Amino acid sequence: MSAMPESILRAEDFGRAAQLLEPIAGKLAATEELIRAKLGSDVPFVENAGRYLFEAGGKRLRPAMLLLSARLLERDSDEEVTYAAVVEFIHAATLVHDDIIDHSELRRGRRTVHAVWGSNLTVLLGDWLYTTAMRMALAHDNLAIIDLFCGATLRMTEGELLVLERLGATDLEPAEYFDIIERKTAALFSAACAAPALMLPGRPEAHGQLAAYGRALGLCFQLVDDLLDFTADERELGKPVLSDLREGKLTLPMLLALPRVAAAERAKVGAVLADRDFVRVAPEEILELVAREGTVEETACVARDWADRALEALSSFPDGDAKRALEAAPDFVLRRRS
Amino acid sequence: MSAMPESILRAEDFGRAAQLLEPIAGKLAATEELIRAKLGSDVPFVENAGRYLFEAGGKRLRPAMLLLSARLLERDSDEEVTYAAVVEFIHAATLVHDDIIDHSELRRGRRTVHAVWGSNLTVLLGDWLYTTAMRMALAHDNLAIIDLFCGATLRMTEGELLVLERLGATDLEPAEYFDIIERKTAALFSAACAAPALMLPGRPEAHGQLAAYGRALGLCFQLVDDLLDFTADERELGKPVLSDLREGKLTLPMLLALPRVAAAERAKVGAVLADRDFVRVAPEEILELVAREGTVEETACVARDWADRALEALSSFPDGDAKRALEAAPDFVLRRRS
Repeated sequence: MSAMPESILRAEDFGRAAQLLEPIAGKLAATEELIRAKLGSDVPFVENAGRYLFEAGGKRLRPAMLLLSARLLERDSDEEVTYAAVVEFIHAATLVHDDIIDHSELRRGRRTVHAVWGSNLTVLLGDWLYTTAMRMALAHDNLAIIDLFCGATLRMTEGELLVLERLGATDLEPAEYFDIIERKTAALFSAACAAPALMLPGRPEAHGQLAAYGRALGLCFQLVDDLLDFTADERELGKPVLSDLREGKLTLPMLLALPRVAAAERAKVGAVLADRDFVRVAPEEILELVAREGTVEETACVARDWADRALEALSSFPDGDAKRALEAAPDFVLRRRS
Repeated sequence: MSAMPESILRAEDFGRAAQLLEPIAGKLAATEELIRAKLGSDVPFVENAGRYLFEAGGKRLRPAMLLLSARLLERDSDEEVTYAAVVEFIHAATLVHDDIIDHSELRRGRRTVHAVWGSNLTVLLGDWLYTTAMRMALAHDNLAIIDLFCGATLRMTEGELLVLERLGATDLEPAEYFDIIERKTAALFSAACAAPALMLPGRPEAHGQLAAYGRALGLCFQLVDDLLDFTADERELGKPVLSDLREGKLTLPMLLALPRVAAAERAKVGAVLADRDFVRVAPEEILELVAREGTVEETACVARDWADRALEALSSFPDGDAKRALEAAPDFVLRRRS
């Protein structure tokens, strides 16, 4: 995706992504412009922190998916640009509130809004972004789309609450994990992809298919995110490896490994979760454990399975540049380095 | 207002408030029931913390104002009950996020959600309440009302941001103070009172008058709130007196006094604002300063002026039980003890 900064993609993928996104390049640029315009505020902090946040880059993956879905449905209006900005504002709001919760200092190698301005201003910036997103979404009088985005926002909030309730738990079940990532990540991808179908009357089947596509892509995206925490280079990811475990979170590579290892090894994982740091256990011991059990590869398999399901969901749409780009997206998600 | 717990009103006012609210008693009860029903969630924390929050009581002043305005306009449907719950959810969301920011341990004599569950869960509870409010507001397909509530929510968030940007400042101007309380408090009162006019086609004049009424009542309410911080009994208010100053906030009684006192006294106020506590200065010194300058009484005068403006805004509406209750509201606000 050209919306992804080069550093996130492998060099050989970058040109291809730019080519696939070419048909929506104008709309992506219009989305950036709209985001910038909406950050204008008579409250200085909103303008400063908002620009800091959005200038950090970010992949603009959700707006790109929304715009490609709109193009797949042969929509061409300002409406999809509005909703593309809405989905990025919602995403940004969840990020800034999550950074408060996780006490994150860095995101993509840059200090978080929370680290720069502290949690008080950041709570309010998140509120401002959520409310501005909702207000922007009102512009085109489409209640079904607002409801779709509200529903996705609720699911994300609930997903994050479920994470907090199970923080440090060593007995998280894979079903709980999938419920969490479905809410936390897949719900907004699904809404972004499905929203354009609600701009057209009488396309319920397209809505269902694009929602399923977005959900599968979102699950794939989060699974890859979770396995990169075990495999990625610290400099490339822009945050420390094994940060999930350090924050008290079990993800699939570890969930799959835990029941197979000896009690003494499970206790080591429990110690990291309890300490929220590597004090009694070295990171290498954890990496060695999942390497031995092969569960990073198993997680990659599950991610590939969701990528395949995303493709299946597109099968009945007619061929064209939008379909080709949507079909390529799962592959980029699987291949991203950070 | 019977929606106000007895402790907040003077004993002699309580019976009269209950009588004035009698015409909307059924709708207030329906609002409570709707609030309770909406707190049902498959995320245990939302249900527990939500019930804790709403069972703490609270005055339900904004829902009462909305329901009285609807009755004034001769509306009688489920719609106004929905919006009454919406306005209380928005209010609750701002309270929980403000408690994080102010590090408040107590509200109305009870531990805050933030004190009980910590700031991480509380950030997400606020997000959940905001989003649920917006989603509830979608139920009746009235985009103008959703926009009204989004606008008020944005103004509240911006008001709170302006407070934070000027925290500890000794040079706050009265104009800035009024801008802040207009956003922080009056905007939601105004939206609550004006919303029912948007349920009716072709009542723009009613909308303007009720918005002006709500705004004036909200300003009066906040002015009284700010002067009670200087005069109220600690036990009655449920939080320490002079808590605004302790949090680094100048309010009108102090704003008016500061330019009139000697530099040494201004320095004392500055010390409290800087220390965020009474370490170098005793609370009695501050209380003595404002008592001598008579600025609590001046603030009460300004509050009475806004109460009068609220009444004026109602003048063209026909007489009836709703109008009588709305006319009485500013007087209750002026007379409340805590």
